[in-house]
Amino acid sequence: MLLLILDLLGIGVFAVSGALVAVRQRLDIIGVLVLATVTGLGGGWIRDVLIDETPPASLEDWRYLLVPVVGGLLTFWFHPALYRMDRLINIFDAFGLGLFAVAGALKAAEHGLGPVPAALLGMVTCIGGGLIRDVLAGRVPVVLVSGELYAIPAVVGSAVAAIGFELDAPTAFVAIPAAALTTGWRLLAIRHGWTAPTPKT
Amino acid sequence: MLLLILDLLGIGVFAVSGALVAVRQRLDIIGVLVLATVTGLGGGWIRDVLIDETPPASLEDWRYLLVPVVGGLLTFWFHPALYRMDRLINIFDAFGLGLFAVAGALKAAEHGLGPVPAALLGMVTCIGGGLIRDVLAGRVPVVLVSGELYAIPAVVGSAVAAIGFELDAPTAFVAIPAAALTTGWRLLAIRHGWTAPTPKT
Amino acid sequence: MLLLILDLLGIGVFAVSGALVAVRQRLDIIGVLVLATVTGLGGGWIRDVLIDETPPASLEDWRYLLVPVVGGLLTFWFHPALYRMDRLINIFDAFGLGLFAVAGALKAAEHGLGPVPAALLGMVTCIGGGLIRDVLAGRVPVVLVSGELYAIPAVVGSAVAAIGFELDAPTAFVAIPAAALTTGWRLLAIRHGWTAPTPKT
Repeated sequence: MLLLILDLLGIGVFAVSGALVAVRQRLDIIGVLVLATVTGLGGGWIRDVLIDETPPASLEDWRYLLVPVVGGLLTFWFHPALYRMDRLINIFDAFGLGLFAVAGALKAAEHGLGPVPAALLGMVTCIGGGLIRDVLAGRVPVVLVSGELYAIPAVVGSAVAAIGFELDAPTAFVAIPAAALTTGWRLLAIRHGWTAPTPKT
Repeated sequence: MLLLILDLLGIGVFAVSGALVAVRQRLDIIGVLVLATVTGLGGGWIRDVLIDETPPASLEDWRYLLVPVVGGLLTFWFHPALYRMDRLINIFDAFGLGLFAVAGALKAAEHGLGPVPAALLGMVTCIGGGLIRDVLAGRVPVVLVSGELYAIPAVVGSAVAAIGFELDAPTAFVAIPAAALTTGWRLLAIRHGWTAPTPKT
Repeated sequence: MLLLILDLLGIGVFAVSGALVAVRQRLDIIGVLVLATVTGLGGGWIRDVLIDETPPASLEDWRYLLVPVVGGLLTFWFHPALYRMDRLINIFDAFGLGLFAVAGALKAAEHGLGPVPAALLGMVTCIGGGLIRDVLAGRVPVVLVSGELYAIPAVVGSAVAAIGFELDAPTAFVAIPAAALTTGWRLLAIRHGWTAPTPKT
C-alpha cells in the first residue's frame, strides 16, 4: 500500500514535469495530456516491453492512468504557480528517481536478467519517459545534453539494487540504501551544481 | 471481408498522409516509404506491442505491408496532384479515424483491458502513427500542437466502444455509433474550424 | 563463435558511429553512451519486440552491453582520431550492414514471418538504431533524407535471405551471398557516389 502511494506520487511528479514542458513548448491540451502520460509512465512501458511483462501494470490499473491525467490538467490550469515551485518539483523528482531506479532494476532482475542489464533497465525506467517527452516536444533530451547528474545516480542506484538481488540480500535491506544513494546524490548534485563530463572539442 | 477492405483503405489514407509529409520535408524515396509505412501501421504496432499481441497482424499478412508501399510510391510520383486533393484526403482520414479508434479500443478490450486503458489504446491506434511520422520528419507532432480536434473525437469514440464492450452490448450495436461519433465530430470540426484549448500564457 | 565475434564487431562499429553523432551534437557523457547503445542495439530491439522475442538476446548476455559502452567511452576520449578514420568506419559499417540485414531477416523468418515482413524486419535491424540515434540527437534521420544508398541494399539483401529461407535452401548457401550482395552494393555506392531518388519538386 505504501509502495503504491509512493509509486503514484513519483508518477505524478514526473507527469507534472512533462506537462510543464508541453506548456513551455506551446502545445495544446492534447499535447499537455500526452506529455504528462508518457513522462509519468513511458519509462516503465519501455522496460516492461523489453522484459516481456505486457500489458504493463500501469495499463491494467486505471489509477495509474488517472494520475498523469490529473497532473496534466492541474498543470494546464495552474502552470504559472507550478513554475514558481520549480525547486520543490526538482526535490520531489529526486525522490521519484531513487524509487524508479530501484523498482525498475528489481523488476528486471526478478524477470531473470543479470545485474548489468537490470541496472540498464533501472536507468531506462527513470529516463525513458523524459526521452519520449523531449522528442515529442521537439527538443534534444535534457538528460543527454545538459551535463546534469541525473542518469548517473540512477544507474548506480539501479546497479546496487541489482547486485544486492543477485547476492540474495533481503529486498528492503537492498532497496532502501540503493534508493537513498540515488536520491541523495541527485539532491547534492542539484545543491552544489555538480555536472557530468562532456567531450572535449 | 468488408472490414478488411475498410481497414486497408484507412491504412492507405494514413500512408498517403505520411508520404506527403515526407515529400514536403524533402526526404528521399526511403524516407517516403518509411513514413508511409509507419503512419499507416505504426499506431497499431504500438497498441499490439503494449497488449502483447505480437507479431502484429499487419506483419503476418503481406497485404497490410503492400498498401503503404503502394501509397508511398503513388505519392512519390503524383504528389502535386495529391496535394490538390487535400480536402478529400482529410475527409477520408476522418473515416479512418473513426474506424481505427473503435477497432483499436475493441482489440484492447478483448485482451482484457478495462474501459479506461482500452480508450487510451484506441486513441494510440489513431495518433501513434502520426506521432512517429512527425518525429522522424523533424517536426513537433501536429496532433499535439495544432489545437485541431483530432485526438479528442478519437478518444471519445474509443471510450464509447470500450464501455459498450464492458456492458456486453452486441459489437455492431456499439461499433457503428461509436465510429460515427468520432468521424462525424471530426468532420464537423474541419468544416467549422473547431479547436481544442491551449494553455493560457 | 565466429558469428558471435562478427555480431559484436558489427555492434561496435554501429556504436562508434552513434557516439560520434553524440559528440558532434555536443551531448554529454550520458548522451554519448546512450547513443552508442541505441545505435548498436536498437535495431535488433525493435525487431525482437515486434516478433515477440523478448527479452532481446542482447539484454540477456552482458557482452552485448559491454561493446557499446566500450565503443562509447573510446569515442568520448579519442573522437578526433576516430573522425579521421571516417572512411574506414564507413567500410566496416558496410560489413555490419550485410551481416545485420541477413541475420535480422533470418531471425524473423525463423519466427514464422513470410518473406515480405522478414525482409522489412531485416531492414529495420539495420536502420532502426540509426533512426533512434538521430531522433535523440535532434536531427532528421540521415537514412531518410540523404539519398544515400543504405536502406535499399539492406532490404534487398534481407529479401534474398528471406526468400532463400522460404525455399528451404541451406542457410550458409543463402546467408553468405545475400550478405555479400548488401555489403558489396553498399561499398560500390560509397565509392561511386550512387544515390537513391528523391521526389521531384
